[in-house]
Amino acid sequence: MNSIKIIGIDPGLRVTGFGVIEQNGQRLSYIASGVIKTPNADLPQRLGTIFKGIATLLGEHAPMQAAIEKVFVNVNPQSTLLLGQARGAAICSLVAGGMPVYEYTALQLKQAVVGYGRASKEQVQQMIARLLQLNSLPGTDAADALGVAICHAHSSGALSVLGGLAPALTQKGYRLRRGRLIG
Amino acid sequence: MNSIKIIGIDPGLRVTGFGVIEQNGQRLSYIASGVIKTPNADLPQRLGTIFKGIATLLGEHAPMQAAIEKVFVNVNPQSTLLLGQARGAAICSLVAGGMPVYEYTALQLKQAVVGYGRASKEQVQQMIARLLQLNSLPGTDAADALGVAICHAHSSGALSVLGGLAPALTQKGYRLRRGRLIG
Repeated sequence: MNSIKIIGIDPGLRVTGFGVIEQNGQRLSYIASGVIKTPNADLPQRLGTIFKGIATLLGEHAPMQAAIEKVFVNVNPQSTLLLGQARGAAICSLVAGGMPVYEYTALQLKQAVVGYGRASKEQVQQMIARLLQLNSLPGTDAADALGVAICHAHSSGALSVLGGLAPALTQKGYRLRRGRLIG
Repeated sequence: MNSIKIIGIDPGLRVTGFGVIEQNGQRLSYIASGVIKTPNADLPQRLGTIFKGIATLLGEHAPMQAAIEKVFVNVNPQSTLLLGQARGAAICSLVAGGMPVYEYTALQLKQAVVGYGRASKEQVQQMIARLLQLNSLPGTDAADALGVAICHAHSSGALSVLGGLAPALTQKGYRLRRGRLIG
């Protein structure tokens, strides 16, 4: 069976989490995870760090697909603007690297990983360590990035292999298009 | 005297304005301007269009410095998030192209171009047409992009050549660092 490498990204201006997994049929394997931290510099430099950091990861791991967490608007509009710019930098790096980019909400991520949309960050970390047979819990940013990669693996495999997640979500008003859930 | 080419960017998710000028001492010449329009596609594709559009412009015109308008938070947080992502894509393209990127607010732009921070869009268009000896008014997005490039030309030249803009702004609580006004 063909395997596919997926990179997951949890974007942030200070810390961007990343996780790379390999999907082989129903089997998921851990490849790498961690964070890209930006320096206390001006915005263009920080965005450049995110952009180049992800470009380096694409070069190292050669994933075939990318999944990124959808971010929510913050109570603080200035924070929303900064987060948006960080996410724009991350998406650009993936697109510039030739990746198809799939977006998932935190709700979809938690449903895919824990089976429960209101799961805590700790539950997500624990389930990811279990699903990927890790010896220790990943950090929260890396866990979210691995989680969104797993979410994509499940939903893109859902049509052909698992058949579990998709019907439940499509009943809730989501549509599936080429393996993508569209709200 | 050495001349320097500057690209100005007015970022937006649907329409991103650009303008390229050449500064030769106190003399400014028009090189090019226009807009990058994104297709009605998903967000990664739209950000990719902005990223690649600017990369193409850098290849065509080989500017040495870039200026980009600082955007404001919108009443609608979702719009703020989208605008932030578009701006992140634009900045990334400039940084990936090796440009030093300078940021200016709309206030700074208007002060530099019209000499009045509350100038209307039409006043900005008219002054830009005059400053760059254009035969017709540029569109508003292209005008803002040319305006931010002019703003950068003035402020970066202010210390060495013009000496006009910098003192007025530094009195208003801005600082100048390596030719950049810092609010």
